[in-house]
Amino acid sequence: MDKAMMALVYKGNGRAVLEERPVPVIRDGRDAIVRVTLSTICTSDLHILRGAVPRAKADTVLGHEFVGEIVQAGPALSGLRPGDRVAANCITFCGDCWFCRQGFINNCERGGWELGCRIDGCQAEYVRVPFADQGLTPIPDGVSDESALFLGDILSSGYFGAELCEIRPGDTVAVIGAGPVGLCAMACAALFGAGRVIALDVDEGRLRLAKACGLCTDTVNPAQEDVEERVLAMTGRGADAVIETAGGEDTLETAWKIARPNAVVALVAMYEQDQILPLPRMYGKNLTFKTGGVDAVHCGRLMKLIAAGRLNTDFLITHRGPLNRILEGYETFEQRRDDCLKWAVTPYEYAV
Amino acid sequence: MDKAMMALVYKGNGRAVLEERPVPVIRDGRDAIVRVTLSTICTSDLHILRGAVPRAKADTVLGHEFVGEIVQAGPALSGLRPGDRVAANCITFCGDCWFCRQGFINNCERGGWELGCRIDGCQAEYVRVPFADQGLTPIPDGVSDESALFLGDILSSGYFGAELCEIRPGDTVAVIGAGPVGLCAMACAALFGAGRVIALDVDEGRLRLAKACGLCTDTVNPAQEDVEERVLAMTGRGADAVIETAGGEDTLETAWKIARPNAVVALVAMYEQDQILPLPRMYGKNLTFKTGGVDAVHCGRLMKLIAAGRLNTDFLITHRGPLNRILEGYETFEQRRDDCLKWAVTPYEYAV
Amino acid sequence: MDKAMMALVYKGNGRAVLEERPVPVIRDGRDAIVRVTLSTICTSDLHILRGAVPRAKADTVLGHEFVGEIVQAGPALSGLRPGDRVAANCITFCGDCWFCRQGFINNCERGGWELGCRIDGCQAEYVRVPFADQGLTPIPDGVSDESALFLGDILSSGYFGAELCEIRPGDTVAVIGAGPVGLCAMACAALFGAGRVIALDVDEGRLRLAKACGLCTDTVNPAQEDVEERVLAMTGRGADAVIETAGGEDTLETAWKIARPNAVVALVAMYEQDQILPLPRMYGKNLTFKTGGVDAVHCGRLMKLIAAGRLNTDFLITHRGPLNRILEGYETFEQRRDDCLKWAVTPYEYAV
Amino acid sequence: MDKAMMALVYKGNGRAVLEERPVPVIRDGRDAIVRVTLSTICTSDLHILRGAVPRAKADTVLGHEFVGEIVQAGPALSGLRPGDRVAANCITFCGDCWFCRQGFINNCERGGWELGCRIDGCQAEYVRVPFADQGLTPIPDGVSDESALFLGDILSSGYFGAELCEIRPGDTVAVIGAGPVGLCAMACAALFGAGRVIALDVDEGRLRLAKACGLCTDTVNPAQEDVEERVLAMTGRGADAVIETAGGEDTLETAWKIARPNAVVALVAMYEQDQILPLPRMYGKNLTFKTGGVDAVHCGRLMKLIAAGRLNTDFLITHRGPLNRILEGYETFEQRRDDCLKWAVTPYEYAV
Repeated sequence: MDKAMMALVYKGNGRAVLEERPVPVIRDGRDAIVRVTLSTICTSDLHILRGAVPRAKADTVLGHEFVGEIVQAGPALSGLRPGDRVAANCITFCGDCWFCRQGFINNCERGGWELGCRIDGCQAEYVRVPFADQGLTPIPDGVSDESALFLGDILSSGYFGAELCEIRPGDTVAVIGAGPVGLCAMACAALFGAGRVIALDVDEGRLRLAKACGLCTDTVNPAQEDVEERVLAMTGRGADAVIETAGGEDTLETAWKIARPNAVVALVAMYEQDQILPLPRMYGKNLTFKTGGVDAVHCGRLMKLIAAGRLNTDFLITHRGPLNRILEGYETFEQRRDDCLKWAVTPYEYAV
Repeated sequence: MDKAMMALVYKGNGRAVLEERPVPVIRDGRDAIVRVTLSTICTSDLHILRGAVPRAKADTVLGHEFVGEIVQAGPALSGLRPGDRVAANCITFCGDCWFCRQGFINNCERGGWELGCRIDGCQAEYVRVPFADQGLTPIPDGVSDESALFLGDILSSGYFGAELCEIRPGDTVAVIGAGPVGLCAMACAALFGAGRVIALDVDEGRLRLAKACGLCTDTVNPAQEDVEERVLAMTGRGADAVIETAGGEDTLETAWKIARPNAVVALVAMYEQDQILPLPRMYGKNLTFKTGGVDAVHCGRLMKLIAAGRLNTDFLITHRGPLNRILEGYETFEQRRDDCLKWAVTPYEYAV
Repeated sequence: MDKAMMALVYKGNGRAVLEERPVPVIRDGRDAIVRVTLSTICTSDLHILRGAVPRAKADTVLGHEFVGEIVQAGPALSGLRPGDRVAANCITFCGDCWFCRQGFINNCERGGWELGCRIDGCQAEYVRVPFADQGLTPIPDGVSDESALFLGDILSSGYFGAELCEIRPGDTVAVIGAGPVGLCAMACAALFGAGRVIALDVDEGRLRLAKACGLCTDTVNPAQEDVEERVLAMTGRGADAVIETAGGEDTLETAWKIARPNAVVALVAMYEQDQILPLPRMYGKNLTFKTGGVDAVHCGRLMKLIAAGRLNTDFLITHRGPLNRILEGYETFEQRRDDCLKWAVTPYEYAV
Repeated sequence: MDKAMMALVYKGNGRAVLEERPVPVIRDGRDAIVRVTLSTICTSDLHILRGAVPRAKADTVLGHEFVGEIVQAGPALSGLRPGDRVAANCITFCGDCWFCRQGFINNCERGGWELGCRIDGCQAEYVRVPFADQGLTPIPDGVSDESALFLGDILSSGYFGAELCEIRPGDTVAVIGAGPVGLCAMACAALFGAGRVIALDVDEGRLRLAKACGLCTDTVNPAQEDVEERVLAMTGRGADAVIETAGGEDTLETAWKIARPNAVVALVAMYEQDQILPLPRMYGKNLTFKTGGVDAVHCGRLMKLIAAGRLNTDFLITHRGPLNRILEGYETFEQRRDDCLKWAVTPYEYAV
């Protein structure tokens, strides 16, 4: 293993620099050192750069969504060995505390969103993963790095949203936002038997993609139509469940309006503003709002479904480039240039 | 049966008048005419008088919480007969529509909150009950009118709040508001096995009552203590479930603050103002908010529990008086005069 | 409407005769008279002929699985009109009694399996359907008679089995028996997100069909392999859920052996013999056995899924013939001649 | 700590001897050595002596139900310290394997019923507890040893049975067997809100005790009454749930007969014989049978409920004696001499 590596480091104040850093080493018996074979850029990374994540620490390597190969496994890890291909969980969690025991890993007493936020992340050549027996999922032989890339973050988030909704076969599920998480949520709604999936987005290209990939049965563009009226016309009484992934100015209002009475509305977006809950206006509608950041506890199940061909997120990768060009990747992703959905970061290419 | 009766009629603009009205008659095969043997005054009645219920119709007899005796049963009713003692559901519902079939009776396509709001209610000598096979629960011999009085409204509401909370034995449940609904919610939380019930109210008398009746294990007065700190100290991580029955200015904020991560917060109060949901501040806490007006579908179960001595709401009746004095009842109840919790309205007393 | 029609009548003692019968008439306000446009033969019909259904009444028209067109609707039916295309529920149920209210329609106090067993069934030109507002599901325009034919019996049975199993996405579900109900159960297991579906049958042709239709991911033939060993090898710890549809001599034993500890084993077959539950041998395995005949309460959901293209049972119809040839159909179906899965009975053809 | 101690050792062939054994020592980082302050004799101990537990090893110290004080904690244990008072789980489980993660600890890949069966148990002065962070529950100050004694075995078993039954408030729960586990099941059924608890036993004394302790509302003696008829008369349609704790010759038959259609029947007894499941006779009754040995995962919750005064098992201790007299205890317990329910074993008394 080299002693130095390239890494994208958050410098505070909206700045990230690609620079040389020491290769990480094992610090705890449950750590693993992983050689990153593919990583990607997430909206949360943009949040950090925008200063919207106060808990993010400067001088930290960015990134938390990746796959790789274990190069060193701490002595307390029994199931993982060097050479294993693994997909990472965006959440660091011990598996032992009360919250972890309930599956509430996002509230792990010794973890949470750490990688690329408070400890060095994966937009680098190597990364140290704490509690690696919890946070890493082995990738079966038939599954490519690209197919496993989104397992532990956006696919888990989409699944989380769908699972929160208590979907029953035949239900109509509306998904607000046809971005990466929204598209994953649509794929997962089908897994729970949704009969009809309505995609809502102001971006016609994304709606077309959702339809073309078979992720939704219907599309609605709030910029062009009266959403409430359209959904009511389609369903008779409103959507049986709503997954709100957009986090926009009026998307929560859209969510509760298109939901039928007694529906579950899953709020899995990351909101930058306080929201209004107009309880007098919605009195008697008896809605359930489930708020939250992903508890990514189903990585094993999701990997099985990917391996069985029942879940596929390959279409999300619209762009690829080596770590050398990651800043170009950030810009392209943020500005949705060339219809960028996700930019996959391949390993650093050293000049020969 | 008399042709005329006394009734408290809502006249609009905050005014109610006790006057003579014709005794109601059967209009539909599923109607029953009930002689009211005991009724009571509900906070919702005050809401109507305050003009806070736009859908309330003027010239309607007020009241929706009562017990009585069937004097006439429509031809389409098979299980009910004249002479049967019954407790009424505050919700009118057909039992047949899609919502009723799911148990979402509050959204019944042909019902909802009708009695004492849009059709003549129970603060009278007689009342017509539509869909009587759905809305009336027979009272077993061993159960008194007083014990059954709250079955179909506030006891159902307390049960609804507790049921929404997905309580498991040993959980800590916090109930905000120790008024009639809050006290019922405490009693029902115990039914689901709550290990600890924390009552919160600014009214020390009500807290003392809750404790004295064995309805709660702990009390907290937000006017005197830092609620969030107290609950955290008691529980280590916050309440496992919160039932918000107060509908006050800052009670929703209290609710989400004292809830532990991943708790259910049941919002069963009737709010008069829009509320703020500060999603960025509660990000990662992954709370579930269940909003709503009571779906009172468990009257049969609750009656069984009353009959078995496992539920008791007798302590709620602090005042009694005949229909003649009902306006005094309204005032006493609204101003909580003499620690009034509930005023039971006995039949009109004609001068001899 | 004609006054006489052709019908297959059970004469007792294993005998059925195609003969003339009067066209049925409305007897109760909730009856409907349906012109049968397509019906089929069910294993239960064979059970009756074999004398294995003591409650079956002689002189009854056979058949309980059909689609048709309403020709007359009783006065108490509001949602159904002459001309409506409908699919029938094999269970007759009132929708009002305690059992129906819980969804336990198989135990309806005024119903149960009536059609073609205790009251005249559908292997005829016309049939009277009691409680038609409960037992008939409208067929949307885009859905053919053949696609809707199995809705209320074997598709409901397969769904019932899958639903009992509490399947979670990614689970491995084993289905014992690749006959009509087993194949439906496989299709429904996928609806609940099964990652892997293992079909077990001694009939290689049926296994091939299951695989070819994409209904299962794996097949096992108990006549040729050690089932327990195979399933263990595939899964590591046994199947997460088992649906037993075969009702054979040792199929219940197979079921509990291939189940992983704490699995649900759904026993939806109709057994002709008492079974052994070897509790000492399975001690600690902590299995759940759910026994039962279908509670076909999800016909509306299933029709939506058929209409949305998410469920398809068309492949089940391997043979077709008019009512005139129904006895040939019974023989072909019973003997599985020409790989017969289901024989669809088209209307009686009168000689011109 | 002494180097030698007294212990009751299983010698094989139905023989147990009280003899001197070395005090156990830490072997693994997650072991704890506990000084036993109170233990008891369980029916499972009798099963071992009767040779009905083939997996039991000769030369093993008996006993698995106890409380004590930690005298030494392995280095990998963070939450436990010498001096802590603890109650033990009868199941040894790692907390890490797939089964443990699902709560199926009875199937722990590295555990199961070990103590007093395959590794030295608690009918001694000291005992080594593996995975002590999982298997030991701290006893709060206000809870006595006697009150905590049954936490990890028979109280957990009773809770397990009640939890399996999916009881809803107001349900009628029948418990077959009013022995120690049955009585605990009754107490726990109430925790889940049971409205009516029917105790069934042929021992009138135990029925009287159940009633006197307020554990049941009704009693039925199968030796004196037609059980099926009685329960039907009481309930109208059968018990909503049945907990079978007796494991007698015809108790499973009683169980399914007194259950109403669609009930859960929890089979938590340890059967010595295969049982008959007469599926043709119960066809259409749609019962669920949950079989199993206790997954004792709720010790923390149960301890909270004991501490809060909501669960009390003190009445079970009818006899007490020091380890010196344990063989007398076995005999008294087995023969139910002097109405013995449980014999509490106090520490060995050395002659002064």
